[in-house]
This record gives sequence, C-alpha cells and structure tokens, in this order.
Amino acid sequence: MPKPPTVYDVAAHAGVSIATVSRVIRDPDAVKATTRERVLQSIDALGYVPSASARGLANRRTGVIGLFFPRHDDSGLGEPTVTEQSTVSTIHEQDEQPDNDNLYYDEVLRGAELEASRRGFALMVASATGGELEQLVMDMAGRVDGMAVLAGTVPGEMLERVARHIPVVVLGGDGADDRFDHVHANNGPGMRALAEHVLASGAQSFAYIAGPEGVADDEERFGAFSQVVGDRLVEFLRGDFTRSGGRKAAARVTSDPDAIVCANDQTALGVLDVIQHQSRKPLVTGFDGIAAGRHSTPTLTTVHQPMAELGRAAVYAIAQRIEHPDAPRRTLTLPVTVVVRESAP
Amino acid sequence: MPKPPTVYDVAAHAGVSIATVSRVIRDPDAVKATTRERVLQSIDALGYVPSASARGLANRRTGVIGLFFPRHDDSGLGEPTVTEQSTVSTIHEQDEQPDNDNLYYDEVLRGAELEASRRGFALMVASATGGELEQLVMDMAGRVDGMAVLAGTVPGEMLERVARHIPVVVLGGDGADDRFDHVHANNGPGMRALAEHVLASGAQSFAYIAGPEGVADDEERFGAFSQVVGDRLVEFLRGDFTRSGGRKAAARVTSDPDAIVCANDQTALGVLDVIQHQSRKPLVTGFDGIAAGRHSTPTLTTVHQPMAELGRAAVYAIAQRIEHPDAPRRTLTLPVTVVVRESAP
Repeated sequence: MPKPPTVYDVAAHAGVSIATVSRVIRDPDAVKATTRERVLQSIDALGYVPSASARGLANRRTGVIGLFFPRHDDSGLGEPTVTEQSTVSTIHEQDEQPDNDNLYYDEVLRGAELEASRRGFALMVASATGGELEQLVMDMAGRVDGMAVLAGTVPGEMLERVARHIPVVVLGGDGADDRFDHVHANNGPGMRALAEHVLASGAQSFAYIAGPEGVADDEERFGAFSQVVGDRLVEFLRGDFTRSGGRKAAARVTSDPDAIVCANDQTALGVLDVIQHQSRKPLVTGFDGIAAGRHSTPTLTTVHQPMAELGRAAVYAIAQRIEHPDAPRRTLTLPVTVVVRESAP
Repeated sequence: MPKPPTVYDVAAHAGVSIATVSRVIRDPDAVKATTRERVLQSIDALGYVPSASARGLANRRTGVIGLFFPRHDDSGLGEPTVTEQSTVSTIHEQDEQPDNDNLYYDEVLRGAELEASRRGFALMVASATGGELEQLVMDMAGRVDGMAVLAGTVPGEMLERVARHIPVVVLGGDGADDRFDHVHANNGPGMRALAEHVLASGAQSFAYIAGPEGVADDEERFGAFSQVVGDRLVEFLRGDFTRSGGRKAAARVTSDPDAIVCANDQTALGVLDVIQHQSRKPLVTGFDGIAAGRHSTPTLTTVHQPMAELGRAAVYAIAQRIEHPDAPRRTLTLPVTVVVRESAP
C-alpha cells in the first residue's frame, strides 16, 4: 500500500511552505486567493486528508522556535572591523591561517537554523549573558511556540513554568531527572570507547579536566571515563570549557599523569598549548570534534559529536511536540565517533 | 584626558548587561532592587553620565534584532539522524572526511548571533523559503527593534515600509540606490585584484559564471571583473550560487576559455567537479573563502570575505541606528583578501 500523502507532499506539490498548507486548512481567508487555489488543487490531486499532525500545525501561535544557551567562549571580541575605506590584500596558500573555528554552540545554532527554516519556522536565539536569566527566559517563552535550552543552564522550576505554556526540549542530559524531551549525543559510550583506546595505548595514570560543575553532558562523560580507568585516575581538575581555562588547568596539574583527558576540545587545546613547552608530553584527548583539533600540534584525539545535527534534532523534537502534545516523553540520542589523531595515537 | 566612562564600562563594572544599565536609567522600578543598587553604585563609582547613546537604548522595544535571508544552498537535507539507540564508531585520522562546510549564510549568522549576544539582544532569524515573502518580512518587522536583510531579497518598497517603524540595514550593495544603511564586503576591488592576478598568469580568454539576476554583490563583482578583462570575456553564464548549479553551468561552457571566473566558491567547486574529468583544465576562481575551497582538488583560488564579520557589522549597524536614529546614512565596507591556491596559481 502506498504511503498516504503528508502535509510535506502537499507543500512540495504546491510549491509553498507547510505553514501555508496549514493556514489554508485552518484559516483559508488568511491566504492569498491564488496561493489558496494552488494548495487546494494539490490537496485534491494528492488525495490528502489533513492529519492530526497537520492540525497540530494550527497550534503554532508565533511561527518562531527559540534556542536559549550560554556562551562558554573566550573569544574576547572587540568592536567589529568596520571601515568606510576600501581594502584588499593578497595571500598565498602557504601563508594561510587556520579557519576561524566553529565552536559547539555555533554548530548547534547552524543546525537549528537550518531545520527551523526547512520547517517554515523563524528561529530566535538568546544567550544568557548576565544576571537576568529569568527575564531572558520568560521574554523568549512569551514569543515562541517552543524552545530548546541547554541542560543545566535554566533551573528546572523555571523550565516547568515555561513548559506549562509551550514545549520545552533540553539539549544534553538523558532526561532521567525531569519530564522534558531531551536531545543529546551519545556521551557516555563515546567517552568509554575513548578511555578504552587510551588505556590500550598503555597509559597507567590519568588526570581529568572537567568543565564547571553541574553540566549534565560532562557528568555523563566523566562517569563513563572513571568506570573505565578506575583508580588509575590520579587527579581531577575543573576548567571552564574554554581554551584559556584549559591552559590554566594544565598549569595546575601536579601528578605527572600519562594521559590528560579533557571534557571538551577547547580545554584540550589549552592543555596542548602548555605541554608543548614541557619535555614530558602526556597523551591528551578532547571531546566535541571542533575543526581546530585537526590543525593543532599535535592533532587532537577526540570524540566527535554531531553538533549541527543536535541543533537540527532539537528543532525536530520541538516540532514533534507541537504536533503531538500528548505523545510520551522522548530522549533522542545522536551517534558519536571516536577520532584517533596524534595526541593519543 | 581620560575617556569618559561609557555604558559598557558601567555594565562591566556592575557585572550586568548594558540592557540592564539602560533599564536602571529609564525604568528603575523594573529592575530587581539588588541589581539596581549594584548598577547605581557602579554609575557613582565611575562618574558615569548617561549619554545620548545610553538614552538611545531606551528605544529598544523588544530587545530582539532580526536577520532575514534566503538560503541558496543545495544541502538536500532529510530528517535529522535521531535514534533512541546508542551508537559509537571509531575512525583514524587518515580516514577523516573534510569538515562539514560552513557556507556564507552560516558564517553571517554566526557573527550576527555573537554580536547580538555581546550587546544583550536576542537574534531572530527567518529564511525566505516560499512565496510568502511579505508576510514573513512583516511578521519579523513587528517583533524586532531593527532588522538586517540581504540585498536584493526584499523589494525596496517593502523595506521602505519596514523602515518607517524600525531601522533596516542591508547586507551587500553599496547603498547608491536607496536610503538604507549598508554593510558589504569590498567586492569590486577584491574581484579586480583577483582578475588582475589571473590575467597576469597568462589567461587570454575568460568565461564568467554569475549567480541569479539582481544580486547586488554579484553585479559589483562582475562589473569589476569585466573592466579588467575587457573583450577577453568570451562567455557569460548564470548559475544559482550552488555547487550543483556550478556543475550544470560548467557543462554548458562551449568557448574553451583559459579561465572560468565564478561569482562564488560553491559555483567554482561545481566547476572543478566537472573539469577534473576533462583533459584541458582552465584556471578556476571563486569568491567567499569557504572552508571547502582549501580541501578541494585542486585547492581553490578565491577572494576571502569576512563573512562572520559581516554578520557582526550588520548587528553593529542596527544598534548604532537604534541609538542614533538621525545620524547620516552609512555604508560600512569590510576588507577582503585574495587567496591564491592551486586552481589559479
């Protein structure tokens, strides 16, 4: 039996967005006559029957999906380079600098925007930058049809309040402690596979540099790591997920470990910055798979998580929840890849 | 004489966002007492006098800046890869694929989000994906304090209507034909320098593959290019800024030119895909400086424009316009770099 046509088929057939198809179904007078006719013809041609899913689209109030996250970076940005003058310079391949790096949040943002656009939503992005968390979250909640927040950045009680009005999806964490939909990378098993690789390379003593306290993904990683290495873990430090934080933490390592395992790539790159000036060079690993790790000296062994896909999946999960408000709670897990490079070969 | 303290200094001193400082100034009762006290103490300590610029912040109605653009890409995305299963795989450095590429819009988005976050704004992003341009633009205009649009994507008359209510900044174009603020890369001089380089390599005949009609940046590039090569331009084709469009256009080239100059990198990468199977290989150039151009075979000679900086500058220009609604109209030009690689050495 062929699959029944979906709202996507109608949208593609009529050459309009699914939001327009939905509008034709629920409020035809709001749609320009020529567009409405085209959509109705496509509905006829395909024999489309509006499903619960299409009716779910009518739950859109704003057509906007929100993404709320903190920026753990140390880019130290000044004002943008603007000029009203003309400037052109020329460089040759051998002089090139590495590309500007795309960090975790940039990739999540990129994926979320792509998926929102594909589904006919606008995306609103806000970063927690000051002491006004509640106001920022509530401002956003009032302006979107659903929102994704990074695990650990918004207190559960505040999220519960938001979730009484709109769907909330948490990026990171496995949802064991709350009742929200979650989207996360396969952190634990990824770190386990990495730790087993480093152990198999002969490392006998390990230091771990975590991020700030209370980050669910990091806790999952550390949990898996410590299960594998057991009492070979000789030192535990905290960084802040930035490269400079990694440098500072590396300078505080006192146990002369065989390997330094880091909670993310930026931390690990900071560690590499420090140990390149030391005679004894421990193995170093990161987590994330940002581009800078392929260009570092040595290149960085890491676990690559599909950051853009996480952003896409978060928007997908919100859209699913808008369409099916009463479906069972879900945790979506995205696959990861251990990438073996020079820093822990 | 030391510089007088700014709203940024107060914000940094008090550890709050500039939006909070502004709120303390214009509507102190809306701010939590402890925060208000801290800000007032910082104002006292620094001897800050609210400037016209800080008062301009009071013009914020929504705290949101909009970014409106089309997606010229051919990613052919399906549903995101989601699973409720665990998956880990391992690869070694030599098996790595190039990074997912960041296209022009992704980089502009990244920069805009960074700058908006830095200034305490949320960012709203909408893509023109269907035939509902006017509704999308007006929806966004009603929800933001100012918006940036890509040149040529929204009719001037519609922009004029938006601009009666909120600041509008156009990304691309030099503003010769309208009364909006513009932010653009130094397209013409960049292309001129590139064309002179290719000419100096000995090319005697040129084909040009443009984008769709009506894109201001492309017209600037082509204008500069044709001034340099004159009647050595033997063929003009149109692509659509995508890699597959570049492939199609390359297949239609009939003049056997010494060089194929393309309006952007993705088009040029499509041309490289086609000519690698041909015995005679013309020089090929792109424009943008996306990462894929460093990994192609051959690597791509191009003009790098600071895409993330364009996004930052657009937000900067909107913020300036919010603060100084009556200042003279500006066109901000960002520097570009000719990057000489293997495809036109």
